[in-house]
Amino acid sequence: MDLKETAKAYKKEQFDDFGLGEKATSGHYRVLNKDGSFNIKKDNVPLLEKINFFHTLVSMSWPRFLGLILSTYFCVNLLFASIYMIIGVEHLTGIYGVTPFEQFTEAFFFSAQTITTLGYGQVAPTGILANIVAATESMMGLLGFALATGMVYGRFSKPAAKLKYSDYAVMAPYKDINGFMFRVVNPHGNQLLEVEASVSLSILRENSELRNFYPLDLERSKVVFLPAVWTIVHPITKESPFQELSVEDLFRRDLEIIVVIKAFDETFSQSVYSRSSYKFNDIKWGEKFKYLMSHENGRVSVDVSGISSTEKAELNEVRFD
Amino acid sequence: MDLKETAKAYKKEQFDDFGLGEKATSGHYRVLNKDGSFNIKKDNVPLLEKINFFHTLVSMSWPRFLGLILSTYFCVNLLFASIYMIIGVEHLTGIYGVTPFEQFTEAFFFSAQTITTLGYGQVAPTGILANIVAATESMMGLLGFALATGMVYGRFSKPAAKLKYSDYAVMAPYKDINGFMFRVVNPHGNQLLEVEASVSLSILRENSELRNFYPLDLERSKVVFLPAVWTIVHPITKESPFQELSVEDLFRRDLEIIVVIKAFDETFSQSVYSRSSYKFNDIKWGEKFKYLMSHENGRVSVDVSGISSTEKAELNEVRFD
Amino acid sequence: MDLKETAKAYKKEQFDDFGLGEKATSGHYRVLNKDGSFNIKKDNVPLLEKINFFHTLVSMSWPRFLGLILSTYFCVNLLFASIYMIIGVEHLTGIYGVTPFEQFTEAFFFSAQTITTLGYGQVAPTGILANIVAATESMMGLLGFALATGMVYGRFSKPAAKLKYSDYAVMAPYKDINGFMFRVVNPHGNQLLEVEASVSLSILRENSELRNFYPLDLERSKVVFLPAVWTIVHPITKESPFQELSVEDLFRRDLEIIVVIKAFDETFSQSVYSRSSYKFNDIKWGEKFKYLMSHENGRVSVDVSGISSTEKAELNEVRFD
Amino acid sequence: MDLKETAKAYKKEQFDDFGLGEKATSGHYRVLNKDGSFNIKKDNVPLLEKINFFHTLVSMSWPRFLGLILSTYFCVNLLFASIYMIIGVEHLTGIYGVTPFEQFTEAFFFSAQTITTLGYGQVAPTGILANIVAATESMMGLLGFALATGMVYGRFSKPAAKLKYSDYAVMAPYKDINGFMFRVVNPHGNQLLEVEASVSLSILRENSELRNFYPLDLERSKVVFLPAVWTIVHPITKESPFQELSVEDLFRRDLEIIVVIKAFDETFSQSVYSRSSYKFNDIKWGEKFKYLMSHENGRVSVDVSGISSTEKAELNEVRFD
Repeated sequence: MDLKETAKAYKKEQFDDFGLGEKATSGHYRVLNKDGSFNIKKDNVPLLEKINFFHTLVSMSWPRFLGLILSTYFCVNLLFASIYMIIGVEHLTGIYGVTPFEQFTEAFFFSAQTITTLGYGQVAPTGILANIVAATESMMGLLGFALATGMVYGRFSKPAAKLKYSDYAVMAPYKDINGFMFRVVNPHGNQLLEVEASVSLSILRENSELRNFYPLDLERSKVVFLPAVWTIVHPITKESPFQELSVEDLFRRDLEIIVVIKAFDETFSQSVYSRSSYKFNDIKWGEKFKYLMSHENGRVSVDVSGISSTEKAELNEVRFD
Repeated sequence: MDLKETAKAYKKEQFDDFGLGEKATSGHYRVLNKDGSFNIKKDNVPLLEKINFFHTLVSMSWPRFLGLILSTYFCVNLLFASIYMIIGVEHLTGIYGVTPFEQFTEAFFFSAQTITTLGYGQVAPTGILANIVAATESMMGLLGFALATGMVYGRFSKPAAKLKYSDYAVMAPYKDINGFMFRVVNPHGNQLLEVEASVSLSILRENSELRNFYPLDLERSKVVFLPAVWTIVHPITKESPFQELSVEDLFRRDLEIIVVIKAFDETFSQSVYSRSSYKFNDIKWGEKFKYLMSHENGRVSVDVSGISSTEKAELNEVRFD
Repeated sequence: MDLKETAKAYKKEQFDDFGLGEKATSGHYRVLNKDGSFNIKKDNVPLLEKINFFHTLVSMSWPRFLGLILSTYFCVNLLFASIYMIIGVEHLTGIYGVTPFEQFTEAFFFSAQTITTLGYGQVAPTGILANIVAATESMMGLLGFALATGMVYGRFSKPAAKLKYSDYAVMAPYKDINGFMFRVVNPHGNQLLEVEASVSLSILRENSELRNFYPLDLERSKVVFLPAVWTIVHPITKESPFQELSVEDLFRRDLEIIVVIKAFDETFSQSVYSRSSYKFNDIKWGEKFKYLMSHENGRVSVDVSGISSTEKAELNEVRFD
Repeated sequence: MDLKETAKAYKKEQFDDFGLGEKATSGHYRVLNKDGSFNIKKDNVPLLEKINFFHTLVSMSWPRFLGLILSTYFCVNLLFASIYMIIGVEHLTGIYGVTPFEQFTEAFFFSAQTITTLGYGQVAPTGILANIVAATESMMGLLGFALATGMVYGRFSKPAAKLKYSDYAVMAPYKDINGFMFRVVNPHGNQLLEVEASVSLSILRENSELRNFYPLDLERSKVVFLPAVWTIVHPITKESPFQELSVEDLFRRDLEIIVVIKAFDETFSQSVYSRSSYKFNDIKWGEKFKYLMSHENGRVSVDVSGISSTEKAELNEVRFD
């Protein structure tokens, strides 16, 4: 027995198993959600390792993020106002409040003026203690707002390949054979370059709850740029894993087509990734995509809204011997 | 029939079709404009997907960008001045205006001093409401100016491979065959490394309005660095798509040579891309480029202004059997 | 003798020697520490080349970093307070201190209000000299805090592939042969893409204190993404360097398995590296890793805490002829 | 005649000609200076294309950079002081100067307090005109200092592969043949990963002032990391261009060895490049590098200062048939 061959065979079979190991699941479920997030949960992660402030701050929604900044700002000022009260408001000039509440309010606003380095000066610290607190607060304000404003800009300038996938994939005639196809479009104005797709088929093993993953060869796996619509085609050649599986097999074995697209976003000068997946119900058999392009005045137009439009198309009869 | 071979043939023919699909256009037009932008329009994009604030802000011209910042600054101050007026100017100390206009003006400038965290203090808020607004405004100012100044620096430090292409490409003798050639130069002081060119020929299919794209093999597709002028050469070997096409064919079938150059910009530490294209009228047949280099005092000089200079050159008679 | 062959052989033997040259060490020691840092010391480096402020600032601990900023802030204010004292406190309005210490304290806090651009104004410079110092100080403050706050955000947003490695590697049955295996998991919420592992075996030469390094072929050296646990497997095929070495050899020749993992961190949009190593005592012979995945409600769960759990497993008898 | 073969031959000969074209120079000169800058001048570059503010600001020395910021700060304040004088100092409260010079000085410092958003308030604008100027100045200050401080941090955090090359390259015995060798060391604490070297030989053509460039095959062209010293070796096999050239040839034809090293700097999370070159006088024939490593307490030490130390070594007699 040729062990080298065996090793190669092993490699092919398990290539790209996405770190999901061999044991997956028995039921019908998604490995990858439609939006590209993973349908997986990590248990028993020590709390300290789980927390990643930057990741949390960069991926939360804008309203939550701004709410967090606002409430932090509020709490920090509450804290410093309390400190000024403890030191004694007589060490702040220009405080005219009589009741403790009035005094606390004025100390609170003095704190806000200090932490933002606004410094009107109508209220100002006197004495060493109050001055130390104010000097510390203004420096903390500079560092703290550096984080906050850095995050604001970091979130704003974070690239994301917001590609739009066709709602359905199709099995359509492709030259004199057939092909598994889906389409992607970049609806935005920013330019994507060196766009590279990798597509995998995931099915359950026969009579098992383990999953196998097979990479699918593509007509083209890379385009230099993506100004319009790209139809990604896996031709059903003799080597295709689709070749040996009937439609019933695919349903029964819970197929999932996993798509990862990598590109260079020219606007952000960074690499970006996009993920999606198609399940059995997302595939139309014997349909093809409609053309989306027209031209007028020497310019090509693409009707982006029609990206999922399909029409009936007779599949080719193919026989490989 | 060997399906694998067929699949390979398909691949070759359609390689690098730049996502323009099969259907392109019948008339003579440009796929790529001279400046590297695409001659393509996207229709029916949902408004929300179309908008990309960062891309818009990063790609607009400097005058428009600065105008936008200035007018935003003006409007936000108008807004806050109105709020202070509604609260009542008596809650701002140091307002000496009598007429509403005078008061509004003073409130406006107080707002400007607050949002920039300038805070002279000749005008200052008193009372809870005015203080809340001022504290909020100064924090908003910090976050807002973080975006504005981040964009200013982001725009300023954004890399762009501003390569200069020769105005014309030439078909010139190359060793004992001929070659399709054009030149690029980096006129700037920044160093480009790992410069990689990919060049494609696009022509209409016979009696069709569909376009085919053929990658062109280059003498060298990559240079380690680009200190001076690089002449990019596609040798017309037996395999060249030019080999089977007459000059008349090329004109009739509306050829376009599409160029994409990738490089690493050492100054910005980032990858940069440059695009251009040559149409039939941009090609000179039977001319060659003039030498641009001279040396004096042990140093090489390149005359960048002569990048498009050509001179007559007899093409080689080549016969492939 | 075929010199080309010889050259190839040389290459294979010394591939990936990690710049440690040929001479290493006689005793049992680690090339790479468990945490990925190098067990190597550089001597006689000129002081100026050794110092790299950015590297130092980015890699020191947070408490030390914040302590450094605080003490710099304190010292700079001491310095400027001294300058204001030398100029004469009578050039600062609003100084009410009588003793030199009181005056110095007030000058100190005035300096703090100036360098942070707080500027209450209860103390303000008069006269040319004091004004020049204050104007210079505020500009220095802006530039200095730009560095400090840039470092704060740079440290905060610095990516690091904090992968968790299994405490032990195992020699386990793998299909009908055996395999050297270890596991990695990304305990964090951020997504790692294009995860690539390179693993090398380092052993002492026979009767020598020199070390050889051998790259180990992996079942898969790359996965497109890493949502859960990845078991990295080096199959002991005929070509494996493990094939010719007994367990006693490995101990005697002080084996070290060196692991480098590269990935693209989607949260930070940057490439990250992780390193680790296994010594003889970190390898369990004839054990295999336990499965970590379960599923419920159509979702896969991974028990991250069990990453190092192993169980007995009979090794396959393999004979290569 | 096989044209494909010819094309290949062309490719080999001219590979990596660094964009210097065919025409170079007759005399003995350097293509690349020792410090990695290019010995080349670009003439007739239109002024506007030549200027690249970012590149200029990022590559000037620190003293010049800080001088530029300081003088800009001074000039802008001069400008605004003049504007306030034109408007009339009576629109600034708190100006006590009597002579125009005194008034101008006070206006100058008021401008400085405004542009840094310091805003003591001892001087403050009154009236619409002065307020408009002050509001504009503070906003300009925020944007302008964003550029200045962005550049400060950008310069500070800019990666640079400051590798140290051995002063000399050697032709030394290598196994049973000989090898052309030089050494590099990273004297700094930051980690370089995926270090990749490409080395080329440049010589004049026979009886010509044109230069040819030949890539040199390396024993290893890439190491996964570079914790210590890396000896880069070009083995003089049958295929080496050195094989056909005598030492006299190399001198007469003005050899230059051009080195480009690429690496990933872990501290800066970016790709960095380093360049150097060796001329005839920088090569020692029949010498080899001394070992630099020792070990104590289970730790390897590298004596970085000895990177250029060589000792006599008999070259192997090699005969290729």
